[in-house]
Amino acid sequence: MAAMESKILPGSYPMNGGDGKVRYARNSQTQRRAVDDAKKIISEAIADLLDIENLTLESSNRFQIADLGCATGPNTFYAVENIIEAVANKYKTLHKNPQTLEYQVFFSDRIDNDFNTLFRSFPFPRPYFAVGVPGSFYGRLFPAESIHFMHSSNSLNWLSRVPNYVGDINSPAWNGSSIYCRGDAKEVAEAYSSQYKKDMETFLNARAQELVVEGLMALVLGGRQDGVPLCQTNMGKTYDFLGSCLFDMATEGIISKEKVESLNLPQYYPSISEIEELINTNGCFCIEKMETFPGPGKHFYDVQMWSMIVRAGFEAILQNHFGSEMVEDFFERYAKKHADNLFMFDGNDVQNLLQINIVLKPKVC
Amino acid sequence: MAAMESKILPGSYPMNGGDGKVRYARNSQTQRRAVDDAKKIISEAIADLLDIENLTLESSNRFQIADLGCATGPNTFYAVENIIEAVANKYKTLHKNPQTLEYQVFFSDRIDNDFNTLFRSFPFPRPYFAVGVPGSFYGRLFPAESIHFMHSSNSLNWLSRVPNYVGDINSPAWNGSSIYCRGDAKEVAEAYSSQYKKDMETFLNARAQELVVEGLMALVLGGRQDGVPLCQTNMGKTYDFLGSCLFDMATEGIISKEKVESLNLPQYYPSISEIEELINTNGCFCIEKMETFPGPGKHFYDVQMWSMIVRAGFEAILQNHFGSEMVEDFFERYAKKHADNLFMFDGNDVQNLLQINIVLKPKVC
Repeated sequence: MAAMESKILPGSYPMNGGDGKVRYARNSQTQRRAVDDAKKIISEAIADLLDIENLTLESSNRFQIADLGCATGPNTFYAVENIIEAVANKYKTLHKNPQTLEYQVFFSDRIDNDFNTLFRSFPFPRPYFAVGVPGSFYGRLFPAESIHFMHSSNSLNWLSRVPNYVGDINSPAWNGSSIYCRGDAKEVAEAYSSQYKKDMETFLNARAQELVVEGLMALVLGGRQDGVPLCQTNMGKTYDFLGSCLFDMATEGIISKEKVESLNLPQYYPSISEIEELINTNGCFCIEKMETFPGPGKHFYDVQMWSMIVRAGFEAILQNHFGSEMVEDFFERYAKKHADNLFMFDGNDVQNLLQINIVLKPKVC
Repeated sequence: MAAMESKILPGSYPMNGGDGKVRYARNSQTQRRAVDDAKKIISEAIADLLDIENLTLESSNRFQIADLGCATGPNTFYAVENIIEAVANKYKTLHKNPQTLEYQVFFSDRIDNDFNTLFRSFPFPRPYFAVGVPGSFYGRLFPAESIHFMHSSNSLNWLSRVPNYVGDINSPAWNGSSIYCRGDAKEVAEAYSSQYKKDMETFLNARAQELVVEGLMALVLGGRQDGVPLCQTNMGKTYDFLGSCLFDMATEGIISKEKVESLNLPQYYPSISEIEELINTNGCFCIEKMETFPGPGKHFYDVQMWSMIVRAGFEAILQNHFGSEMVEDFFERYAKKHADNLFMFDGNDVQNLLQINIVLKPKVC
């Protein structure tokens, strides 16, 4: 028996679920843009590279798609619809009766994701059979060779855990003065990139087992220009503001300074060459297509929208770390700090985070 | 494209979710007994009837199981473990390396089921890949020929909807004086049995498409001895007490009498020959094995346990119909009424509901 999905992660940081004003489903505009930007490369990859004739013969006209890191929608639905449209177009060119192809979509996210909300948001009617798969994608989620198209958007920047040592005050990698990997302290950056490397290795190995050999995988993730540390990007500034609000609250005695120092976001943004090298070193996949876009730019300038996007993504992690009492106060401070410092977001290309779109095909061993 | 899962049911009656004292997961002892009682027939069916050699060749050593009406566990996990144990035993007799078989289990229930609780209750570690499938089993849930073993326990007594006419005061089938199908009023009984027939037809047709041709389906459901109306059974008495408490509360002006008269539980218990005939008339499946057990007997005598079991199963439906204010009061009354009338449960075989276990195999057309 293969090792099953095996990581119950320490801590908990789902996107905001439920149906409140700051739910992720309503505050995920940047993630939506990423889906839109990746549509073309995915459609082209399916048209050019998907060996649909062999795929469908093998599995009784069932085409299985997995979206990894689906959250509570709705972006996952747009992404899946794009994929199905492209597959259907390809299939049509080969078959007189395209109606015979049935799609089954596996929406996957960590076990603490709000699947109840996801399920109640499923489009209806929909041209596919929909299922939910709880579990970390840093481990096996599916039986061997059971998925034809893997997709993951805006999820592979989340590490499986906070890296070792960055929370250890006695380590040279201690990251007490920041809540994220700024990239300007060597030991901290190494601890983070080493964790990212391990996680990507686990991710790619698991997917290589789960994908059929003629399958495809599309990864959409945030990244940095080579040589640009995260602290120099707009996203880095956002994290700096978040951290600075926390330290302000610690100074005022609202939360403990030690608690702030011990917070390290389990997020990592690789550089373009770093992700490329990781995939090549891993060796399970060929990079078939790769492109970059400037990451979310304009959303920074809409203070209210940006504050809500940040809150939908980070409320759970802050609440778990500090308790729920500080949350309202904190996000008010954050919105103000962001508004006061808008001038720092000048929107040039270096400052922008990149969106990296990659299409992979399993290497036949 | 085949018609997808297409029924969003009117009303809502999930088993109690969450982690409270009256959650279904903690108050489903009668359902657990049903799983235990069905274990033998299922194991034997797998040993005798499952053509595992052909099955596994076809689907790259992936064995796919679906449990329909899984609620929030834990009984669904026991049932699935029994099935996997039997399949593994069978597989071992044919293969030197039984580790190569991978299981994927589809846990399915209506979209209003508490899947978050189900997912967080998954056994860990577990020898299978687990998936949640929201949707009504009175419709398609899976792609064609994608499931090797279907299982449903204690769920097929729930109709897809309240039958036509039983809520219509101008119809001869009006069921204003009772909240369920007592079976002693011809028109009401016909309305219910006609709905059951339609639902079973839909259920069997959908499953016939989803099961692989060499697959098996095990159904465990409550039923009546031929010729015994439900009102003469212990279960009927339970419904009568529930109804009587509601009418008491209406008399006291706590809830409206019209509301009580308009409540009709969407439940049906077929007689043995009725279910047999339905399956044979439908024609998609052969009945390979069939047996009956006396239904839950002893649980009736433990007043507290029985009250909790009833509450876990019916709280949601009552709350949706009457609002949440009446719930505490109502279940206190019900527990008292049940305790005061314990002498009526004499536990003889006629009074007991039956548990019907059926193993079906698709007919090859």
